[in-house]
Amino acid sequence: MTSNEAGPPSRYHHGDLRNALLAAGRTLLEEGGPTALSMREIARRVGVSAPAAYHHFSGLDDIAVALAERGFAELAERLQAAPSNAKGQLAPAGMAYVAFARKNPGLYRLMFGEGFHTAFAADDRIRSLRSAAYEVLKAGLSKRLPPDEIGTAALFLWSLTHGLALLMIDGQFDPGADPDALVAAVLRLSGKGLPTSAGSRDHA
Amino acid sequence: MTSNEAGPPSRYHHGDLRNALLAAGRTLLEEGGPTALSMREIARRVGVSAPAAYHHFSGLDDIAVALAERGFAELAERLQAAPSNAKGQLAPAGMAYVAFARKNPGLYRLMFGEGFHTAFAADDRIRSLRSAAYEVLKAGLSKRLPPDEIGTAALFLWSLTHGLALLMIDGQFDPGADPDALVAAVLRLSGKGLPTSAGSRDHA
Repeated sequence: MTSNEAGPPSRYHHGDLRNALLAAGRTLLEEGGPTALSMREIARRVGVSAPAAYHHFSGLDDIAVALAERGFAELAERLQAAPSNAKGQLAPAGMAYVAFARKNPGLYRLMFGEGFHTAFAADDRIRSLRSAAYEVLKAGLSKRLPPDEIGTAALFLWSLTHGLALLMIDGQFDPGADPDALVAAVLRLSGKGLPTSAGSRDHA
Repeated sequence: MTSNEAGPPSRYHHGDLRNALLAAGRTLLEEGGPTALSMREIARRVGVSAPAAYHHFSGLDDIAVALAERGFAELAERLQAAPSNAKGQLAPAGMAYVAFARKNPGLYRLMFGEGFHTAFAADDRIRSLRSAAYEVLKAGLSKRLPPDEIGTAALFLWSLTHGLALLMIDGQFDPGADPDALVAAVLRLSGKGLPTSAGSRDHA
C-alpha cells in the first residue's frame, strides 16, 4: 500500500472507474484465466492505486462476483436473442450458449466458480443470475414440452451445452476444420437422441 | 528444506513410498481441490522430507499428472465394467461416468486440468489416457451406430456426462431427494431426445 491512500487524482468519474476496473479484470481473465485475477494488477492496468480500486470493490472475491454477474447477464441476453427461440427450437439457443463460452473462456470458467468456489457458493447474486439464465432456457422448452418434463429436459440441455463448451475451451478434443458445424451436429442429437442400430433393440 | 537432505530413514520400500505419496495427494485433492496440492504437504502427510518426495516426482506438475493418470485409468475401468455396456446400452456407462466424478470430485477436476492447464496440455500421457477412456465410450456406441455417426455421438455423450458431472460436483443446481434417479432421467433423454410438443413441429 502506498502512502497516498486515495491514489493519484483520478481521471475517472465514480462509475467510469468501476467500469474501467471491471474491463481490466475481464481482460486479465481472458489472458490468464480466473487465477490471473489480482486487485493490484487490475488497479495497475487502469492506472490507479490499489486503495482506489478497493474503494469500488471490497476485495478480489467482490470483483470476481461482479465480473461473473455481468457474464451471466450477457449470457441470458444472448440466449434470449437467439433466433427461433420463440418457436421452441433448441439448437439456436444451444449454439448461442456454446459460442458465448468459446468467445469468453476465462469469464465462462469464472462464472462457474473456477478459483472462487467458496466465495461463489455463498453469494446470492450469483445464484439468482444463474437462475435467470436457466429460466430463459426453460422458457424455450415450455413451447415444446409439458410442464412436468421441463425440469429434466432443461438439466439435460444445460449439461450438454456446459460440457461441450468446457471440453472445447479446455482443448480436450480436436474440433476439426469446422467447429461450428460440429457443435451444430452435436446439438441436433439433443432433439432426436441417439438412434438404435438394427442389431440392438435396447434403448439407453 | 531441512538439513537432512535424504529425510528420515524411510519406512517405505521404493514403490510403497511412491504409492503413499500418490495416496496422500489424492486425499488432499478431495479435501481442497486441485489447488490444495503441494509437494511439501504431501511429503509431510506421508512422514518423509520434501527431498525424499522429489526423489519420486520431479515436482508438483509431475505428481498431478501421475494422479490424473490413475484417475483416467480408473474411469476407463469403470466404464468398461458398466453392466450392459456390451449390449450397446448407453445409460449404464453414463451412470458409471457421473458416479465416478461425484465420488472423486477433486480428482475429476484435476483430470480435466483445473489448476494445471498448461502442464496437462503439453503431456502426452494425459492425452493418451484420455483417448483410452474415450475409446471405451466409442466401443459401446459401435454396437449401436454406423461408423460415420460414432464420432459425433461420442462427443454428444461425453459432453452430456461431463457437463452433468461438473454441474453436480460444483453444486450448480439442487439435485433433490434422489440424485441417482435424476441422473438416470437426464441420461435417458440421450437415447430418445427431447420430444416435440403438438404445438410445434420444429425439431431442434
